Amino acid sequence: MNPSAKASVPVIRRLPKYYRYLRALKDAGVNSISSRELAAQMGTTASQVRQDFNCIGNVNGRQGIGYSVDKLLSILEGLLFGGGDHLPAILLGCGRLGTAVSSFIANNNNGFTLIAAFDVNPALMGQTISGIPIRPLDSLEDFCSQRHPQMAVLCLPRSGAEQISGRLVELGIRGFWNFSHYDLSVSYPDAVVENVHLGDSLMSLGYRLRND
Amino acid sequence: MNPSAKASVPVIRRLPKYYRYLRALKDAGVNSISSRELAAQMGTTASQVRQDFNCIGNVNGRQGIGYSVDKLLSILEGLLFGGGDHLPAILLGCGRLGTAVSSFIANNNNGFTLIAAFDVNPALMGQTISGIPIRPLDSLEDFCSQRHPQMAVLCLPRSGAEQISGRLVELGIRGFWNFSHYDLSVSYPDAVVENVHLGDSLMSLGYRLRND
Repeated sequence: MNPSAKASVPVIRRLPKYYRYLRALKDAGVNSISSRELAAQMGTTASQVRQDFNCIGNVNGRQGIGYSVDKLLSILEGLLFGGGDHLPAILLGCGRLGTAVSSFIANNNNGFTLIAAFDVNPALMGQTISGIPIRPLDSLEDFCSQRHPQMAVLCLPRSGAEQISGRLVELGIRGFWNFSHYDLSVSYPDAVVENVHLGDSLMSLGYRLRND
Repeated sequence: MNPSAKASVPVIRRLPKYYRYLRALKDAGVNSISSRELAAQMGTTASQVRQDFNCIGNVNGRQGIGYSVDKLLSILEGLLFGGGDHLPAILLGCGRLGTAVSSFIANNNNGFTLIAAFDVNPALMGQTISGIPIRPLDSLEDFCSQRHPQMAVLCLPRSGAEQISGRLVELGIRGFWNFSHYDLSVSYPDAVVENVHLGDSLMSLGYRLRND
């Protein structure tokens, strides 16, 4: 059994941050680090770091030396990126946000490969987005039955996301990177959903600046 | 005293979601809603909804009728957007992500107005981004002393964000919408920071799809 299976969602959300810090340490030539030093850099506690590392496998720091940066990176890369085995993803919505998000996926080695993009706008057909041809939405069924994408990036308005998400779940999509304002997790509790609500984040910032 | 001052960060983070749901209810012609109905739509509990509304002011639901949608919207608009008084913001980094983010701010009424954009790339000078001229980074001090922006959007690489953030705090920037991988809150605990870590979100999604 993968020891990572016991990691809770809050732990999982912290793993990319550990990964980023450890990459920076490796780039700076650091070979080992204590939970206390890592915690100080990340703004958390040494106890939290040790608990989190316990969840992801057999990671023991050595007294007086600390954790091996290479060993931690290798474990985290396996967990986060599946050892280089990219998951196939599709993009729904090729507007400005979809363009930026597709470029982000194409330029970052985050464990996914975008294999198709879909839109309803006839003017976009035949064009490409981050090197991928834009397809009409009515070719979605054919495409998914042939290529079996596992993740969908939703860069659509709320109504579009609401209309399409059930269809995507039926076509075998298991995960959503959701930029829309439609709360998928209420309707599809079995789907794995990461929401990026840019508007909510900006509103929270405004609230705190006005009321702090 | 503003009753909202007692709202904790987790409550503040939920307010935009309430706002979105209540807008959708109003658009659908709904005048009042119970905490139970609202909780069911949002995937939370009625008790959580009532506690949250207690934090934001004198919001009492009426037995058998529920909360007034209009009254809640009016309170939330005041808290989140300051009654239409937009806060001036600047963008640092005019690449692909900066372009998408600036367009998002320009096209959404989220309480901020982008008044300038800065970059170090000479090829971008004289060009515009979402209708705003791109300025050289060395004009930052002059601009801020004249126009007093309060929020900075960071669409820079980690190293660029690390270099510029202290300078921005000294120039009066109180809040950051941070798309970079630099963790500002460790170095500047007094700054109001909203992080949008797209890479982290994508990595978490990959982890959950591979290990769920």
